[in-house]
Amino acid sequence: MDLDHVYRGKRVLVIGGLGFIGSNLAQHLVRLGAQVLIIDSLVPDHGGNMYNIANIRDKLAVNITDVRDQHAINFLVRGQHYIFNLAGQVSHIGSMEDPLADNDINARSQVYLLEACRQHNSQARVVYTSTRQFYGVPKYVPVDEAHPIEPTDVNGITKWAGEQYHLVYHRAHGIPTTALRLTNVYGPRQVLKDAEGRMGVIYHFVRKVLASERLRVFGSGEQLRDYVYVDDVVEALLLAGAHDEAIGEVFNVGGLRPVSHLQLVQLLLEAAGLPTDQYELVPFPPERKAIDIGSVYLDSTRIREAIGWAPTTDLAEGLAQTFAYYYEHKAAYWDAEMVATLQEGSLQAGNA
Amino acid sequence: MDLDHVYRGKRVLVIGGLGFIGSNLAQHLVRLGAQVLIIDSLVPDHGGNMYNIANIRDKLAVNITDVRDQHAINFLVRGQHYIFNLAGQVSHIGSMEDPLADNDINARSQVYLLEACRQHNSQARVVYTSTRQFYGVPKYVPVDEAHPIEPTDVNGITKWAGEQYHLVYHRAHGIPTTALRLTNVYGPRQVLKDAEGRMGVIYHFVRKVLASERLRVFGSGEQLRDYVYVDDVVEALLLAGAHDEAIGEVFNVGGLRPVSHLQLVQLLLEAAGLPTDQYELVPFPPERKAIDIGSVYLDSTRIREAIGWAPTTDLAEGLAQTFAYYYEHKAAYWDAEMVATLQEGSLQAGNA
Repeated sequence: MDLDHVYRGKRVLVIGGLGFIGSNLAQHLVRLGAQVLIIDSLVPDHGGNMYNIANIRDKLAVNITDVRDQHAINFLVRGQHYIFNLAGQVSHIGSMEDPLADNDINARSQVYLLEACRQHNSQARVVYTSTRQFYGVPKYVPVDEAHPIEPTDVNGITKWAGEQYHLVYHRAHGIPTTALRLTNVYGPRQVLKDAEGRMGVIYHFVRKVLASERLRVFGSGEQLRDYVYVDDVVEALLLAGAHDEAIGEVFNVGGLRPVSHLQLVQLLLEAAGLPTDQYELVPFPPERKAIDIGSVYLDSTRIREAIGWAPTTDLAEGLAQTFAYYYEHKAAYWDAEMVATLQEGSLQAGNA
Repeated sequence: MDLDHVYRGKRVLVIGGLGFIGSNLAQHLVRLGAQVLIIDSLVPDHGGNMYNIANIRDKLAVNITDVRDQHAINFLVRGQHYIFNLAGQVSHIGSMEDPLADNDINARSQVYLLEACRQHNSQARVVYTSTRQFYGVPKYVPVDEAHPIEPTDVNGITKWAGEQYHLVYHRAHGIPTTALRLTNVYGPRQVLKDAEGRMGVIYHFVRKVLASERLRVFGSGEQLRDYVYVDDVVEALLLAGAHDEAIGEVFNVGGLRPVSHLQLVQLLLEAAGLPTDQYELVPFPPERKAIDIGSVYLDSTRIREAIGWAPTTDLAEGLAQTFAYYYEHKAAYWDAEMVATLQEGSLQAGNA
């Protein structure tokens, strides 16, 4: 499908568009000639970063607001042809520390958005980023969409609720929605602030490498995961928005192939230009072992058959691009205070 | 198990205790010698009715508050040995009309309660009433607990989220919770206000009989459902609270056997003392056919094996008791305004 033809000149709302995936999507949409409006709350620790769009700041519009602001959402959805709904509280630990905020952002606010669509713009194509996380401890791998839903934390509950709201609003009200359950996503533009245990393993390792710290792998490092490069996710989002076959559907978006933690570390060191033996195996700390879910990776057959998407970026290649980006732009992703300072005054600068 | 021994003298909180199931539970707990505190919001149309406990008003305490009142909940959970958590927005149509209230009552407020327990009373046994409704269109019958979760409306999403919060708070914080997924419950003390399509089929038929209106069965009347008498549900709740084996578990609570709509109507007419041919088969209205989920009934094997519960009340017997109750007390359940008037001043009267 010619995505250029689909999105050129169209009004596209990217909710969470200053974040990791959202900003990569916005970069791509601008290249396709879309009229992009980004909504982001810049909630600290949620990943929003004005630097992510600094290079295209004069080619799109930015509106700072929170998805919990119902009036703002009611206004901002109007007139949009496409709505990519990527905002969310994604930290599992954060969800246990503040379960109400987790409900408000991931579940309650999704009702705001869907009601706003129903009342003010029921034709806009809505694509929601869901997660593999609520499959819980896998009963089998690869995990397909029919796998039981058994969330292990509050975040899994609220993300599933947010996803299901999208599907119910399609069935009951005809809102053309699609939900994508993403596996671990990696690539440029992810904030690299130190947040032990709050982000995925690949994020953790990338930060360690950039900090010149030694990598530690728990246990035997044999657990398998899949990783999908952010450009592949952007393509999945764009295809989902473009294909009528995706309406009312939920699709897994997985990686090319499962990779062990050990393989990941070696690929990562290689991509970073470091000796591939600069890691150590350490025994599983009991508190980590207790929450380890073993091997988990997704079956992406349904989305391939429905709309022709499959991941194409090899992990070695994706990691090389990731390090290339961070070697050049590390300062803008490293330190929370510095990131905030870089963003001061950037709204007016962009609009000038 | 000797439930008398378990609950005598214990402090028991019944949230939603003026409603249909909650008030039947409170009646039983008072008989067992428990110290009962009822919380109820008396939200119109949610089923709360002071008349439900008029006969035991001086044997328990009543506190009118909404589960959305976090401060009240924080105070009221303290010192309780058992918490039966039955409050909820149960109308499927209502959930589509006001999806935010549905989220706030059924999902968000469950976090209030569980956080209150975690911070102020982490030993209280919590039993939550969930529903079979989020299984959606059955993939097989009888439906067991491993059946896929595919809610057809907002209410199914929020009830599932509320249930899963209880399970996650057990696993993560050790709160001793149990969730019971109830099938269609029937019996005395259910408000019979006219609410077409908002309540289950049995409620609808009972009201028609009491209004001397002719019963209408859609299609061939062959769809199977199961029905569980409220006293059996009360026993399931009490057993769940009493057994450590139920902690962290979710159980189906189904009926004795599946019954077709046609059989139900005939049993119902017989129980009401009316000729059993006083109904008519009418073609399925298209808008009802569209949302009909076919035959659905529950497999209750797990709860029987775990804590020894099984339904015992035959449908004919349960319906006879239901009609006996309503023939005597119809006025208190029939008309919304009359019900409200009957409740005026009843808090002081009880405390005097």
